Amino acid sequence: MDRLSRLRDAIGGPRETAAREAQRHLDALTKPPGSLGRLEEIAVRLAALTGRPPRVTAPVILTLAADHGVVAEGVSAYPQAVTAQMVENFLRGGAAVNVLARQVGARVVVADLGVVTPLGAPAGLVVRRIAAGTANMARGPAMTRAQAEAAIETGAALAAEAIAEGADLLGTGEMGIGNTTAASAITAAITGAPADLVTGHGTGLDEAARGRKIEVVRRALSVNAPDPADGLDVVAKLGGFEIAGLVGVILAAAARRVPVALDGFIAGAAALVAVALAPEARHALFASHRSAEPGHARALAWLGLEPYLALGMRLGEGTGAALFVPLARAAAAVYGEMATFKSAGVDGPV
Amino acid sequence: MDRLSRLRDAIGGPRETAAREAQRHLDALTKPPGSLGRLEEIAVRLAALTGRPPRVTAPVILTLAADHGVVAEGVSAYPQAVTAQMVENFLRGGAAVNVLARQVGARVVVADLGVVTPLGAPAGLVVRRIAAGTANMARGPAMTRAQAEAAIETGAALAAEAIAEGADLLGTGEMGIGNTTAASAITAAITGAPADLVTGHGTGLDEAARGRKIEVVRRALSVNAPDPADGLDVVAKLGGFEIAGLVGVILAAAARRVPVALDGFIAGAAALVAVALAPEARHALFASHRSAEPGHARALAWLGLEPYLALGMRLGEGTGAALFVPLARAAAAVYGEMATFKSAGVDGPV
Repeated sequence: MDRLSRLRDAIGGPRETAAREAQRHLDALTKPPGSLGRLEEIAVRLAALTGRPPRVTAPVILTLAADHGVVAEGVSAYPQAVTAQMVENFLRGGAAVNVLARQVGARVVVADLGVVTPLGAPAGLVVRRIAAGTANMARGPAMTRAQAEAAIETGAALAAEAIAEGADLLGTGEMGIGNTTAASAITAAITGAPADLVTGHGTGLDEAARGRKIEVVRRALSVNAPDPADGLDVVAKLGGFEIAGLVGVILAAAARRVPVALDGFIAGAAALVAVALAPEARHALFASHRSAEPGHARALAWLGLEPYLALGMRLGEGTGAALFVPLARAAAAVYGEMATFKSAGVDGPV
Repeated sequence: MDRLSRLRDAIGGPRETAAREAQRHLDALTKPPGSLGRLEEIAVRLAALTGRPPRVTAPVILTLAADHGVVAEGVSAYPQAVTAQMVENFLRGGAAVNVLARQVGARVVVADLGVVTPLGAPAGLVVRRIAAGTANMARGPAMTRAQAEAAIETGAALAAEAIAEGADLLGTGEMGIGNTTAASAITAAITGAPADLVTGHGTGLDEAARGRKIEVVRRALSVNAPDPADGLDVVAKLGGFEIAGLVGVILAAAARRVPVALDGFIAGAAALVAVALAPEARHALFASHRSAEPGHARALAWLGLEPYLALGMRLGEGTGAALFVPLARAAAAVYGEMATFKSAGVDGPV
């Protein structure tokens, strides 16, 4: 717990002076005040977080992979082997997150936090395995408290490494067959929403299979009785290693005042845990988009975050986070490159 | 009317075979079918429009400027001189649209269709003036039918030129103090919505000034009695030269099967006129974002378009259109670069 406590203690609130200064600068630019809407909000939030003019030059997406014991309950449309197959796809650059990251100039870091199918150590894979998948949360805790701590610290270390190498925006990505079930359970536990309202079709379940998935989420909640006030308890009992890893990514980024582009539903569950552990971590979070998974809107409401993109995506991997990069860059460019009314000789309001 | 009629006749519907082929290809890629949501929709619509795999390599934003006689009624927070001052700002690259276009790799074409303050012919400005501003629509038609046709043909020629030079995505941009008043009147005329529901605060009117603006819109509608079934009548009586120019941009792009990224409220009014003139033009239109101006949602609903970005912007110039470029490029990249289940050896659903 020591390292985790230190991480939590290092997370501070927004820098109000920098935020006010940023708003003053934006209001001097050649546009009616506020007319760039939430692009200005992004610029102000980046300034409030980092304490300097917004800048996004080296975005990195951390895509963490792990397997889930709960797939034994038949909660996914795809076989567990797909987790490892998709990791290989990531390493070859053929998955959606690779394509979108290339498109926006972001680097993707792929880490194995506990995939069941043996991957070996292929080039480019960061191997930081906690165990070969979690236990089945429908029958007991998915992991021990020590495993949860180890996974959080692993994610935190990956984030710290990326930041040390220059990353100034982190995106959250994940892969793990079964992880929408874990995310639903976490979302229900922390927000208090009933299981059926936060459990969706995942990668493509039909209505009957979704009904069984809801039952599994309910069972996981009643078997484990997670303590919503204790984020570590929630993620240990219901999480996946990749979700706990993303909790660490968020905490480490927030502690270093580096913004985090949240992806979709799974990332939202990790954010719930991170903010339960350290409420000020919220200020580092930018909700890229709202997932088509019903639980995501609940998570975002609890977090007090409003998404920027209305794309109805539900893929994960970090795809939504990648699409936030151009918006963050646009906000920074507006801030840094626009003329002021004074410099351009443009009249103000009559 | 002859050239306009030919333009209208050249606009066809979507290519259903290409759309089906695109959907089939997207479903073979390593992701659950449909999981990239509206990014897939963009790819399919681009394929349906162009008849080939989606591709966005040379986006061009056409920012047309003109003045509005209706400013005599005190409908704007800014003086009329700002239209010309902002054109100069565009030419120096200091305005929001320049910054965002640079950010996304788009070229901006700035054209004077009828700015009141003399601009001369500064380097980079395309001078295609119809007249020195429109007449005051609150006292009679803003322009003659011949002027409206000339402005539409001018916009069409600018679009045709950009496309001939290689543009494969056009963005609509505009500048004209007073043009939210014109857009409100056009939106009311074509959608049938009452003036108060489609008239907003523009560049920053207070509530009392907005009340007067609503009265001006009502007067323009009653004085001119535009025929909602005749797009040319509507834009001639209520439009600005830049709005009519954008009608031409949309029609010419649609006729050449080149996609159009619609900007905000003013562009929405131009789209209403274009689609009133040629209903199939709708298939070429992509609604970048939903403006904070209240009339925009009405216009988009009438057009059957759903915006992609939730940014609460209300600046115009083409800023929203610029932000659509990364989404269109992302859709094309997903289509062109992702691995298939087969090529990547990833299992499908169980």
